[in-house]
Amino acid sequence: MEIHRFASPAEFAPLRARPEQGAIDIVDQTRLPQSLVTRRLATVLDAADAIRSMQVRGAPLIGVTAAYGLAIALRADPTEYHLRASRALLLATRPTAVNLRWALDRCERVALAVPEPSRAAAVWNEADAIAAEDVAINRAIGEHGLRLIRELAVGSRPVNVLTHCNAGALATLGYGTATAPIYLAHAAGVAVHVWVSETRPRLQGARLTTWELHAHGVPHTLIVDAASATIMQHGKVDIVLVGADRVAVNGDVCNKIGTYEKALAARDNAVPMYAAVPSPSIDWTLPDGSRIPIEERDREEVLGAAGSDPSQPQGTVVFNPGFDVTPARLLTGIITERGVCKPTALRTLFPG
Amino acid sequence: MEIHRFASPAEFAPLRARPEQGAIDIVDQTRLPQSLVTRRLATVLDAADAIRSMQVRGAPLIGVTAAYGLAIALRADPTEYHLRASRALLLATRPTAVNLRWALDRCERVALAVPEPSRAAAVWNEADAIAAEDVAINRAIGEHGLRLIRELAVGSRPVNVLTHCNAGALATLGYGTATAPIYLAHAAGVAVHVWVSETRPRLQGARLTTWELHAHGVPHTLIVDAASATIMQHGKVDIVLVGADRVAVNGDVCNKIGTYEKALAARDNAVPMYAAVPSPSIDWTLPDGSRIPIEERDREEVLGAAGSDPSQPQGTVVFNPGFDVTPARLLTGIITERGVCKPTALRTLFPG
Repeated sequence: MEIHRFASPAEFAPLRARPEQGAIDIVDQTRLPQSLVTRRLATVLDAADAIRSMQVRGAPLIGVTAAYGLAIALRADPTEYHLRASRALLLATRPTAVNLRWALDRCERVALAVPEPSRAAAVWNEADAIAAEDVAINRAIGEHGLRLIRELAVGSRPVNVLTHCNAGALATLGYGTATAPIYLAHAAGVAVHVWVSETRPRLQGARLTTWELHAHGVPHTLIVDAASATIMQHGKVDIVLVGADRVAVNGDVCNKIGTYEKALAARDNAVPMYAAVPSPSIDWTLPDGSRIPIEERDREEVLGAAGSDPSQPQGTVVFNPGFDVTPARLLTGIITERGVCKPTALRTLFPG
Repeated sequence: MEIHRFASPAEFAPLRARPEQGAIDIVDQTRLPQSLVTRRLATVLDAADAIRSMQVRGAPLIGVTAAYGLAIALRADPTEYHLRASRALLLATRPTAVNLRWALDRCERVALAVPEPSRAAAVWNEADAIAAEDVAINRAIGEHGLRLIRELAVGSRPVNVLTHCNAGALATLGYGTATAPIYLAHAAGVAVHVWVSETRPRLQGARLTTWELHAHGVPHTLIVDAASATIMQHGKVDIVLVGADRVAVNGDVCNKIGTYEKALAARDNAVPMYAAVPSPSIDWTLPDGSRIPIEERDREEVLGAAGSDPSQPQGTVVFNPGFDVTPARLLTGIITERGVCKPTALRTLFPG
């Protein structure tokens, strides 16, 4: 039995670049919490497979992994043809998180601006830059969110934060997005307790968020997704903090399935709710959330829990959307690296 | 592999009285959908164990099982002392569904009104009566609910019903409560399609509701609990029908955890939502839902899904409430055996 304990999320990284090997090492998150296993991604196919199979997941981490994946591809073959093919391969892995497209577009521009022999190194540097920026963005989101948590602290009573899925250190290169304010509060001696909703069907809350909160010593309690509203009704939640996979210009937030229900429960119980949104997760081409592509995932993810039903030889029909869209009107605010704003006022922080 | 197919819910019973054996046979619902196994309950301890372990579950079925359990107890020992002890044993099995107390109170009154040698037979007859009334109540709820479904039917497009947990034939002696309108619509040739939310942590939706809908040939699709709001947002639900474990006089509805979130999602998307409530589930002693005792169940029910985390040797802290309370203001109406009313108008149907 391994005991993982990290003094700070900065000590832990779900992805480490290995420039001397022309590869990256990732933590296989499908194996957590039972095993902390790393896997080396040495080809673009490895990188695409790791994203598709959700060994790496979380919008920011997907973006960084794809950036390194493109650098790895160009090391093998720096031609424009291979660049385009590799970009398409990586882009097709997951449809919803916009960080993937954003990172690939950025790396593609860098690659095309230099001659073929320089492309791999240039894109590798760009991936390093995206990773470093992600750490800084996490930190800034954490500082802005910490102020919100401090405002809710009364005496020594812990501030109760509800989160969903994993918008944590495991989803990013640093403190996480929704978890960054939690970790900074914990480090600053502000007592926090986190309600973790398990996040069916893949249980990222139960498997990943509890794992990393435990590793960092943050008190937490696991609930089923459907229990969020009742704990808010009983006054047990002071603030809801979630991440985002893609945010439209009007502030509609696409995030893990179930986020919309949390927002409805928060509004009905006058609990403030914020989405922690790094700017690379904002899709400036989308006026609202209605056209965000929602990934439909495998039926087995849902059926696995109940066991097979021998009376249904053809199998139960399943609808398994991975994400939902929370209307901007339901959120108190959005926390970005540039500060906190009303969901509808993103352009005040990012004038474009 | 067994194939179960019932032409009508009336053909199937999760409980059958065996008066000649002084026992009842129940379907062990913890074994569904993999196996259709019956168990004989021949002592009051058997009956209490079957309720506590959720081999029988669902408010109406709990009430009927307890009634027969009391009759079985009195067959062994008809004294008032044993009556009181057996009643206490059965009452302690589950705290939330009021049908349990209602059925035991009713049977106790019958027992105390006759001399000891007649008690077992008198209570057995009373249990038979409660069972028969449940069938009639189911049927009446079904007829009233069928009118609501018919109003939503447009051409040959199926009416999309969302339900939660299992308020079905498996929870009652007849057509179920929330499912009764569905089965009657299906039998009447009104096309229906049912969205089944899986109902973590015990998966009564995924295990039981899909099983019985399949057995009766009703088209259905399984979703995770957290996907309810998004399918309503996309116009895929015409009506939400749920059951109830205890309803307060003001119309607050206590039902399986997650019902409150369904009601919030229904209101936000202008989808009508009704609780199907047999009158024995109404607690006329409770002015509102705030004092309904909510069962907290075992942490293992929640943890089982994610696997154990070797980094948390003491185990993750879990909060596992079995039920929540939906405020009356969120429901369109309540369907009882006497008709449909506004949640706040129960006294108009039951003047008391």
